[in-house]
Amino acid sequence: MKKQIKAVDARGRKLGGDTPLLCAPLVGRTRARLLAEATRVLKQKPDLVEWRVDFFDAIGDAGAVVEAARALRDVVGKRPVVFTCRAESGGGERIALGREAIVALYDAVAASGLVDFVDFELDNDPAHVRRVRESTRRHDVRLILSYHNLAYTPGLEYLIDRVLEAERLGADVAMLQVMPTRRRDVLTLLSATEQADERARIPVISMAVGPLGAASRLVGGLFGSWLSFAVAESASAPGQIPIGDLVAVFDIIRRVRGGEML
Amino acid sequence: MKKQIKAVDARGRKLGGDTPLLCAPLVGRTRARLLAEATRVLKQKPDLVEWRVDFFDAIGDAGAVVEAARALRDVVGKRPVVFTCRAESGGGERIALGREAIVALYDAVAASGLVDFVDFELDNDPAHVRRVRESTRRHDVRLILSYHNLAYTPGLEYLIDRVLEAERLGADVAMLQVMPTRRRDVLTLLSATEQADERARIPVISMAVGPLGAASRLVGGLFGSWLSFAVAESASAPGQIPIGDLVAVFDIIRRVRGGEML
Repeated sequence: MKKQIKAVDARGRKLGGDTPLLCAPLVGRTRARLLAEATRVLKQKPDLVEWRVDFFDAIGDAGAVVEAARALRDVVGKRPVVFTCRAESGGGERIALGREAIVALYDAVAASGLVDFVDFELDNDPAHVRRVRESTRRHDVRLILSYHNLAYTPGLEYLIDRVLEAERLGADVAMLQVMPTRRRDVLTLLSATEQADERARIPVISMAVGPLGAASRLVGGLFGSWLSFAVAESASAPGQIPIGDLVAVFDIIRRVRGGEML
Repeated sequence: MKKQIKAVDARGRKLGGDTPLLCAPLVGRTRARLLAEATRVLKQKPDLVEWRVDFFDAIGDAGAVVEAARALRDVVGKRPVVFTCRAESGGGERIALGREAIVALYDAVAASGLVDFVDFELDNDPAHVRRVRESTRRHDVRLILSYHNLAYTPGLEYLIDRVLEAERLGADVAMLQVMPTRRRDVLTLLSATEQADERARIPVISMAVGPLGAASRLVGGLFGSWLSFAVAESASAPGQIPIGDLVAVFDIIRRVRGGEML
């Protein structure tokens, strides 16, 4: 069980290192609420925070978004920030912005140097994916290309291919999010994660959502998922587990594995 | 996700009911040590205890074994007891007794009415399996037929077939214990459990042993394993997790699943 190390570094936290990271979502609708939420959430010591900007009322004003990102950076200090405008089809909020405007927003935020990762859906227009890829490269921001299926869980090979496709498109990290409709689907997601982690050169993040998918959040790290989203205050997807619970489970796993998580 | 209910009742505890059970092994070498161990172990409130009689020095004296079983019953009260003489090939202690003598011992203990389950290896001589099956039926004791592979993890279909074979031979419960040599093996064990639980009419218990198999002990219940062996005091197999840790993880799973474990 020699583990492949393919860490993506962000301000000293390694995604793909020797332990899965815990990421807390931030869903504040205003600048003030976002900052207050971040202040409270940080007390629970997530490894990263994800700003789900699709919840942000002023998302249409790129200047206001960058300014909020700057204020957020002051609150989070050196903690890595993932910047995500989740599409509605991937479980995001309904927003008025078109994809063109979102690509421009990602570029403005990447250029600001205030965030460490951006997450963009793999199934966006290839020209948009390419532009986000170019922008993040230029501004030294890591790109997560993510696949979301909130209706069901596709087959094993299809899921593995999504990771390899993300890699081919230049992602630094690939993400898979699926809806299990039977318990077997959770094992399909874990198997896809395990095999994709063997085959891809980039780290994988994966989860089966909802109550049925809980196992994937608890033990996904043992099968190659390098990050788990955890609730510090508000869940951003169904089935997210409180951060303290995940820390407890990760500690138990580390103990039974003789100090090693993976 | 309608769950099939196929509970095996033992003194009011349901194996195959609405939550996996926790079983603590007892490995005392003498009657006095066994009883002292049981007294301490019960403080941690396992659902069942398993007396691993292959650790018992006086195993060759059936009268002494039955007498110890009687004293153990006084200590454990209504808690179900699994009586197991694990074969060396299945990870048990080396003992002088031949299989004939073990079958006779199982019969004496079953006849005593002091234990609730006996665990016998599926790969024993078919005539021995038949005799243990007849004896346990006659004395209203539940039979666990168990498959052990402490060298590696066989393929998915082979593992499913072991459960169906146990059912065919008249088991009340089937058990699978495998050694994972790579993380993928743990998913094979969980998949076999899930599919066997769908297909068999009897409850399944399964585990991948060792540090690599930890996930199977934590989340196996979500995939159809109805019992997890946990360390109250002494482990009886590698990778067993302290009972308090398993209780904590099961509680977390119940919370995220809205109060339901399965």
